[in-house]
Formats: sequence, structure tokens, C-alpha cells
Amino acid sequence: MKVGIVGYGNLGRGVEAAVTLAGDMELAGVFTRRDPGSLKIASDAPVYGMDQLDAKAEEIDVMILCGGSATDLPEMTPQIAAKCNVVDSFDTHANIPQHLATVDAAAAKAGNLGIISVGWDPGLFSVARLYANAALPEGDDYTFWGRGVSQGHSDAIRRIDGVADARQYTVPVETAVDKVRAGEHPQLSTRDKHTRECYVVAEDGADKAVIEEAIVTMPNYFADYDTTVIFISQEEMDQNHKGLPHGGSVLRSGMTGVDGQYGNTVEFTLNLDSNPFFTGSVLTAVARACVRMNKEGTTGGRTIFDIPPCYLSETPREELIAHML
Amino acid sequence: MKVGIVGYGNLGRGVEAAVTLAGDMELAGVFTRRDPGSLKIASDAPVYGMDQLDAKAEEIDVMILCGGSATDLPEMTPQIAAKCNVVDSFDTHANIPQHLATVDAAAAKAGNLGIISVGWDPGLFSVARLYANAALPEGDDYTFWGRGVSQGHSDAIRRIDGVADARQYTVPVETAVDKVRAGEHPQLSTRDKHTRECYVVAEDGADKAVIEEAIVTMPNYFADYDTTVIFISQEEMDQNHKGLPHGGSVLRSGMTGVDGQYGNTVEFTLNLDSNPFFTGSVLTAVARACVRMNKEGTTGGRTIFDIPPCYLSETPREELIAHML
Repeated sequence: MKVGIVGYGNLGRGVEAAVTLAGDMELAGVFTRRDPGSLKIASDAPVYGMDQLDAKAEEIDVMILCGGSATDLPEMTPQIAAKCNVVDSFDTHANIPQHLATVDAAAAKAGNLGIISVGWDPGLFSVARLYANAALPEGDDYTFWGRGVSQGHSDAIRRIDGVADARQYTVPVETAVDKVRAGEHPQLSTRDKHTRECYVVAEDGADKAVIEEAIVTMPNYFADYDTTVIFISQEEMDQNHKGLPHGGSVLRSGMTGVDGQYGNTVEFTLNLDSNPFFTGSVLTAVARACVRMNKEGTTGGRTIFDIPPCYLSETPREELIAHML
Repeated sequence: MKVGIVGYGNLGRGVEAAVTLAGDMELAGVFTRRDPGSLKIASDAPVYGMDQLDAKAEEIDVMILCGGSATDLPEMTPQIAAKCNVVDSFDTHANIPQHLATVDAAAAKAGNLGIISVGWDPGLFSVARLYANAALPEGDDYTFWGRGVSQGHSDAIRRIDGVADARQYTVPVETAVDKVRAGEHPQLSTRDKHTRECYVVAEDGADKAVIEEAIVTMPNYFADYDTTVIFISQEEMDQNHKGLPHGGSVLRSGMTGVDGQYGNTVEFTLNLDSNPFFTGSVLTAVARACVRMNKEGTTGGRTIFDIPPCYLSETPREELIAHML
């Protein structure tokens, strides 16, 4: 199947690597808003400007959209879904129903399939929650993120006066995770679940105490958390904090039996050296399912909840059943 | 939807509890090979003999089959699939393709849907392996079982001369699990992965040394493992080893990126106070999917790999997308 990538940031690079690895896929092109002549990509696939997308869409089986959720995808996904099957990683949880409705309308009208909100959260974490809730209808859900880099929080620190560079790690509180694993059904506040670790490079002459105060009191981002600020040099930043690791755990603690006499814990945990490369790999698996489902007649807007899992794998269904079930 | 249960052992009781809990299900009957008049069940559902199954099948939306995999299900599942939608927990991994083919033929001919091999392994562990393999096509799979009771191994010990009662726990080797979690991709032999703990009540006057030797040297069951035998009294057995806890972990350690430069670990872990009650709960969720998929026209034989996850939940799809994605 012929796959296109729209947008070539970290996520686009991750998709490119995963598509290159897939034996049943060909990377038909990378589409960029930058000057296509100046964009160097890792593979030898052709690079096109966005103005060439309409002309090329017909030859492409599925387009994987690697734009941002704030402004790119709400416009881009329905637009491109009118021309081609699409998969995106829209991750503004609160706006998912609205986004799905827009994509559904555009894709259905064109006979295409658009699968939205793919990655690990939303994505694999979401299906883990769904399977655990289906198996244990009575219980409590918990999600812990990290240890990993939050790009939104890192950016928020960089906007503070006197900050030259910053990297923020979200860290789950291990004692809280252990309580959930032990089936204690704890009530956990925001502060109980995660701490925030900030590595900051201050500009020459900046007042570090003022920067630290600005960070730890920042509403929404840090004020509700126990936050640690560590000032380091740019060299240390470049050497030790260049990666984008992430991960986390989805847990459900629930009861079975008459009067709920049996306790059970279901846990799904990810540890990722690179958040965008793993997310890109999940998008690629879902793009495969998207093409297969559309070939069988599915059109409109869908999510990972709607995909029979065997459609995700390059391995034929019969082989999966014989060796993986 | 009206649900029937065929077979009323531990698993049947687990299904009964889960169906009773489900707001969208009614337990229409329990079918037994025993004398239906003598069988006391936990709920107030009617109990029928197997000879009444044909007459009742028409009123039932899905039958959950709680027989054994060795001799019951290979005959029973295709037979009943010819009359009604069915879900079973067939768990002889090597014979799944053959069983699926038989069920597929019988169910398709009758316009019914038969979903086989449902539970946690095969079942939720299988889908966990599938999602992890789809997201990380390059990598290594590991499955650890326990700490939990293996009924097959307990039965094997009970057949030894001089043994009055026995309970065998399968125990994962924590250092091995930790190596996998750390992304070390270890090569693990059977002995490296699990140990076996046997609690045994000896008959009066039995030679314990002879019993222990018979256990630890038993081919297939114990010879390839580090096995511990602990002799206890019947009172201690009844007090501390009556439950059927189980669980385990599916892990995949895999690479993303160009030349696989990023390591990733995906883990799915279950801790279950009662193996049959959790398995019964999973069977019940899949029975819901079975009825929904058959109503939409799906017939023949399927597995959990073929089920869009949103079909498993009592919660409507729109709500799942709004709150769980």
C-alpha cells in the first residue's frame, strides 16, 4: 500500500521510519508546508509541497497526518479526508467528539475512511482502558504518565524571561502506583499522582530565584504539583536531555464475583525511549488497518475503538490465530 | 440480550456473576449434564437439562460454553453454534486453527456467530501480544504466568500414590521479568522463567520422600522446572489454599527508529484473585460483542482478534469516545 506523510517534524520522522520498516508499505511522498526543495528527509521518498497534495492524493492509499492538534489537524484532517483515507494523532481529549464528527462527514461523503486520535494516549492507553473496563465493569481507573518529557510544559518554561532552554519531566509517584497495583483503590489528587522535574538553562545574569518562583507558581502547568527546578548548563542539557522518552501506566482495579468478593488488577505499561517514534509506529499500524477496512467498505470517521485488532498487523490473520492467540 | 450458560463448574459460576452484573443482559438459563433438579445455582435463573437446549436455543441470543477444552468444547461448540450464537474458552493453543475451522463451518451454515478461545490466555493476553507486535514489529515477546494456581499441575500431583490433596502454584522468576522490563532482551529457558511450588497433603503413612521424587521428576509437568514441594496438613490446605488466584504478564521489547536506535517495552499484567471469575467476566463481555456483531450480519467463526473493542462494553460507543479515548 502507498502511504503519504503530511508534516515532517519529530512525529513525521517517526512515521517515516515505521513505514520504511513495513514490508507491505511504500512511502509515496512526504508533504510539507516548507520549501520542498530545502527539506532533507531520512529516506529517499519524494518531497512535495502542500499544493501538490490534491494531485497526488489519488495515487495514495492512506495519508498519515503529523500536524499539531491545536490548529493544524482540526482543519487539515477533514480537508484531506475528502480526498484520501487519513489517520491522525489528534490528542486534545475534550475536542475529540467534535473533531470526529467533522472528519466523519467529510470522509463519508467522499467514500474514504478517517481514523482519528491515534498514538498511545489517546490510542493504546485508550484501548487498554476499554478492555479493562469491559472485563471489570465495577472498578476504578488510574492513568500515570512518565517518566517522560512533556513538550508543552518544557515550552511553557522556555517562555519565562531569563530562560535559555528547558526540559520538563513528568514523573509518576511510585508509592501511588504501588497502592493501585496492590488493589487499595486509593483516592488520588493531582499532587498525589505526579511530580514535575524541570531542567533549566538560565541566561547569563538572570535571577534564578525569580525563574524558579515563576515556574512553581505557574497556574495549570505547575501550581498543583510538587515541582523541582534544577539549573544546569547548556552543555549538560545537550548531553543528557536531548531525547524525548515517555511512557506510563493505565491501571484498572476492579471486582468480580457475587458482591464483588474478588479483587483484580489490570495494568498496561509503556516505556518508550522515543515518544514520537513509538507514536509514529502506532500511526503506521493503524494506517494499515485504515486501508484494509476502507477496501472492505468502511467509510466515515472512526477511532482505534472501532478497529478489529487483526487489521493492525502485517502478519496474515490465519498466522496470528495460529501463533499469537 | 438473553444469555445462556452451558456447564456449571467454576467458570460457569464466574459467567453467572458477570451476566447478573450486566445491565443489558438477562440470564435466560443454565444448561447442565447433571440432574437439573438437583443443581443449586447462585442466581434465580432456570436450570435445564442438556436435552432442553435445542428447544430453548431459539429464545437465547448467545450461549456461553463453560465446558473443558480436552473433550467437551471440540464437540459442543460446533454443535451448539448450529443453533445459536456461541462463545467458548477453548484453550488448547495448538488446536485452535482446527477448532476455529469446525466452528466456522457450523456457525456460518446456520447464520450464527461463534467466537472461540476467549478468556485471558488465550484472550486478553493474545490481544496484548497483537497490539504490541503491531506497534513494535521488530522485537521479542515474553509471557510469564503467575503467581497462580495451575489446576492441571495440581491434578497431576493428586494422581500420585499417597497424595491426599495438592495445590500447585506457577511462579514467575522476578529477576527474569525485571531483565525483560529493563530492555535486556534475555534468552530465557523454561527453567529461567518460572518455578513451581507444590503444597501437598500426604496420606497417613505415605513416604514423603517418594512423593517428592515422583513430583520433581515428572516429565512435561515438573522435570524442566525448579520445583519446591511443601508438605502441609489438610487443615492448612483448606485454610490457605482454597482460592484460584492467577495472573501474569505479557511483555514485548522492541525497537523503533532508523536502525532500531530506540528501545521500547510494552507490558500487560493481570493480577486476579479468582481466575474463573475473571475469565467468566471476559467471556461475558465477548458474548455482548458476539450478539452485536451477529445482528450486524457477521456470521461464522471468529476470535478476539476480530472484535472491534467498542463492541465489548455496555457503555455506548459515543460515550466511550467522549470519556475513555
